[in-house]
Amino acid sequence: MTISQDFNDWMKRVQSQMEDALTTYLPAIAELPVRLHEAMRYAVLDGGKRVRPLLVHAAGDLFDADPVMLSRAAAAVEMIHAYSLVHDDMPCMDDDELRRGKPTVHVKYDEATALLVGDALQSQAFLVLSDGECNVAPSQRLAMVRELAHASGSLGMCGGQAIDLESVGLKLALDALEQMHRMKTGALLRVSVLLGALAGKELSMAEVDALNAYAKAIGLAFQVVDDVLDATADSATLGKTAGKDAADNKPTYVSILGLEESKALAEQLRREAHEALAPFADKARRLREIADLIVQRKA
Amino acid sequence: MTISQDFNDWMKRVQSQMEDALTTYLPAIAELPVRLHEAMRYAVLDGGKRVRPLLVHAAGDLFDADPVMLSRAAAAVEMIHAYSLVHDDMPCMDDDELRRGKPTVHVKYDEATALLVGDALQSQAFLVLSDGECNVAPSQRLAMVRELAHASGSLGMCGGQAIDLESVGLKLALDALEQMHRMKTGALLRVSVLLGALAGKELSMAEVDALNAYAKAIGLAFQVVDDVLDATADSATLGKTAGKDAADNKPTYVSILGLEESKALAEQLRREAHEALAPFADKARRLREIADLIVQRKA
Repeated sequence: MTISQDFNDWMKRVQSQMEDALTTYLPAIAELPVRLHEAMRYAVLDGGKRVRPLLVHAAGDLFDADPVMLSRAAAAVEMIHAYSLVHDDMPCMDDDELRRGKPTVHVKYDEATALLVGDALQSQAFLVLSDGECNVAPSQRLAMVRELAHASGSLGMCGGQAIDLESVGLKLALDALEQMHRMKTGALLRVSVLLGALAGKELSMAEVDALNAYAKAIGLAFQVVDDVLDATADSATLGKTAGKDAADNKPTYVSILGLEESKALAEQLRREAHEALAPFADKARRLREIADLIVQRKA
Repeated sequence: MTISQDFNDWMKRVQSQMEDALTTYLPAIAELPVRLHEAMRYAVLDGGKRVRPLLVHAAGDLFDADPVMLSRAAAAVEMIHAYSLVHDDMPCMDDDELRRGKPTVHVKYDEATALLVGDALQSQAFLVLSDGECNVAPSQRLAMVRELAHASGSLGMCGGQAIDLESVGLKLALDALEQMHRMKTGALLRVSVLLGALAGKELSMAEVDALNAYAKAIGLAFQVVDDVLDATADSATLGKTAGKDAADNKPTYVSILGLEESKALAEQLRREAHEALAPFADKARRLREIADLIVQRKA
């Protein structure tokens, strides 16, 4: 489980492509309202590892996806992710001042702007997904809209966030914690894989099942590793406030399972992700490498 | 300009149908997270005149629209409208405690829940628009998603809201005020008309132009009347805090034009709305009656 130079090159290429795509697909800064458009760019550009876009592209390559649609899908998912971070950081939610090593949007601008940045980024995600010409059938694109809306909403990301808020100070059972994370972060990771695949072709049930099994495993692995890092890394490395979950009295994998067992679980989930991809043989190499990346990341 | 019994009956029928549709298209309350789903219903159900759904249905009837798609489009627009009210009422925005005669969502629940209710309602709107079977071509439905996303985002509703925030305490020129309202409330009223029409068939440019001219006129009329009511009606009649714009030092039509000239402008816009519909002759009767309703409403 070492990240190859070849994978690193691919990742850098996708990340740089993604930055260009996001720059293109965000509203132009010259358009009114200028300050809102600036703040939207501040929230989205120059940030993070772009794990979700990497998943979109890796899944898309597996199904010979249309490059334009792939780029739009990746940008849409990343905009949803970015909006959720902006809103999560607000004082009425996690009240965080640092994100990716920079002041959060409500600190840099103000709360009202942060609220609108999040709202407008969500609209923009659905605009990017439904706008422009490409070689994907409208029925397929409509399915992509449906999947992204489902993953973002009250049965996906927003719902997971609501359960998270309700669980502060509670001792959650492991399965309740898993359910919460499957919605809060898992749904968007899962839909990243799905959108990439849908940009290529209509999927068989077997293909959907295999991708779902993979996405489920990496979704949980992602969260387990997040909890491990929150408990062990420092703020400078994370680019956000470390030790926040414990301070906020939030249930985490580390608080329930302990540190060593959490690390072992992450490794087990990485293996499960690899196994789920067996039907695709070597073509799914990038997806396997992303699973490795998720588990061995340091921030 | 008296509202006919016939129109009243039609309006009540659409409103009641709408309540059923929204009840169906909102996430079931039995699903987790229960509190979020309750709060989403609290924000959407049993509220308002449903002006936007009325526009969707009136425009749809003009183009023999598919009834299922019409109902979905109307529900989607109303969910976007409802989410915008929830977020606008929050302390970091207008900080309002009363909406439609009831405590606002952040007062009844809490701020974090209000934030998530708005976010999840926006996702739900795009889900409702893209989900389920109907007799409208996928390419047409994709166009509806695109139009709704555009009208909701930073070049539409959210953008108008941002300009509104920036203009507190400023003396806006009439055209800047108009631009702000065209985005803040006009864009969603316009897209209501458009979505209703698109649920029927692909439109000619002339038809789009006529509908846009109508929508532009009623959009502005809606805001002019809002400003007149804010300056003249009491909170009990409005179901929200009256005199708020003046108290917040916000530019309004009444503050720029005075009361009588604002009333005359509303009447002029009503006539422009009627004239724009001339190409559709008597088939556009409901749209004309909605223009009358918007201008003569008391709350």
